[in-house]
Amino acid sequence: MTKTAKPLILITNDDGVSAPGLRALIDVMSELGTVVIVAPDKPQSATGHSITINDTLYLNKISKDGDIITEYSCSGTPVDCVKLAVNEILHRKPDLCVSGVNHGSNSSINVIYSGTMSAAVEAGIEGIPAIGFSLLDYDWNANFENIKPFIRKIATQVLENSLSDGVILNVNFPKLETKDIKGIKICRQAKAIYVEKFDKRKTPQGRDYYWLAGELVNQDHGEDTDEWALKNGYVSVVPVQFDLTAHHSMQQLNTWKWNE
Amino acid sequence: MTKTAKPLILITNDDGVSAPGLRALIDVMSELGTVVIVAPDKPQSATGHSITINDTLYLNKISKDGDIITEYSCSGTPVDCVKLAVNEILHRKPDLCVSGVNHGSNSSINVIYSGTMSAAVEAGIEGIPAIGFSLLDYDWNANFENIKPFIRKIATQVLENSLSDGVILNVNFPKLETKDIKGIKICRQAKAIYVEKFDKRKTPQGRDYYWLAGELVNQDHGEDTDEWALKNGYVSVVPVQFDLTAHHSMQQLNTWKWNE
Repeated sequence: MTKTAKPLILITNDDGVSAPGLRALIDVMSELGTVVIVAPDKPQSATGHSITINDTLYLNKISKDGDIITEYSCSGTPVDCVKLAVNEILHRKPDLCVSGVNHGSNSSINVIYSGTMSAAVEAGIEGIPAIGFSLLDYDWNANFENIKPFIRKIATQVLENSLSDGVILNVNFPKLETKDIKGIKICRQAKAIYVEKFDKRKTPQGRDYYWLAGELVNQDHGEDTDEWALKNGYVSVVPVQFDLTAHHSMQQLNTWKWNE
Repeated sequence: MTKTAKPLILITNDDGVSAPGLRALIDVMSELGTVVIVAPDKPQSATGHSITINDTLYLNKISKDGDIITEYSCSGTPVDCVKLAVNEILHRKPDLCVSGVNHGSNSSINVIYSGTMSAAVEAGIEGIPAIGFSLLDYDWNANFENIKPFIRKIATQVLENSLSDGVILNVNFPKLETKDIKGIKICRQAKAIYVEKFDKRKTPQGRDYYWLAGELVNQDHGEDTDEWALKNGYVSVVPVQFDLTAHHSMQQLNTWKWNE
């Protein structure tokens, strides 16, 4: 990006096009560049890196011709939104893709279930600098004003510097007032898992069904993790990659008797 | 696992409970241990690590009391299947979870979209040794007999040795006869991306819609990748991890001006 060109910023999320978290992101990004929004037409939380291959996809243009901000809703997943935006809507590769602000945490293992982060990762796969933003507050009316200065700071840093190839930022904000947030910390993903507690119920007709109702348990006491940072009042920034190879285990696996 | 106990093996997939690839896996695993199947009641390809949090989940027991093999279908995603199996069906943690055999490739970047691999990764997150198997043949009537000796060999190796904590195997088979398969190779995930070619059509009512129709383009010429192995007649085995932290980029990110 040259200094003189206005950056082109693609915005998406997984809570759907009407989510207040998306609106907060639009507010900040409109000050930094030309924004185009392509977001799911309904909530798509926890859809991970799901894409729509066995069904049709629809795009609905919400903004009118002449509007400053171009906005679409899409019938698909967050990852579908990014693919459609890049291939069918935008005339050039965006300078930045931001996803969120998610209503709720995407720290630690949440990153793998998160539609918000998967959209950002998809942009990263397609060679677009990308950030997923999440606030540790599931409330639809969460206060996003508190975190706007930090969103601006982080997006500006990514626009001014260069993210390494294949690296996406997973940003989580503690539920605190701006003045109480201690700063921004580069972290690693904490080792945490969901302990599931399925809620088993009966339909009015007497058939068993389940609600997934897990609880995140952090098994990681490191002070370099996203969980630690958030608990201690920092904004956590975890660089995320989509090369899933466990390179460290290749040597050991090569000692196994595979071809005898 | 002690040598005397019969291993408990959980089997799932993303093509659905009626898929021939699942049946092939059941054939082989029944010879290695006690198997329990919990698979989606409908195709769930490319659902990634999606979980069902805004809808109910149903389990249907398919097998009868007294059957040697216990089998359930589930209304949810492959990851839901693993969570329900571990928490609501199995009385102890399985010794192995196998997912597949997928009808089609899950090599290179496919790993991130794949329901088959996400089910295996979910098992890995829950501390269960896990393998995802995929055959490079999308045909419903693909020949799974050719790869059965290799499935047995790989599952046996995982049962006899110990996979490192947090490591899952992504196994892909070339579409070849058994005698033409050159062997098993430990690989890294190739750098490949989908170049999307959305197929834009009109409904009978004249509304535009899209089909996602991408093509995988391998940008990686390394001879240590899964794509290379498969192209050259080998079974590829990629160790996969769910710590997505891009540790190599943390030092660089720490030089940015985050808190000024």
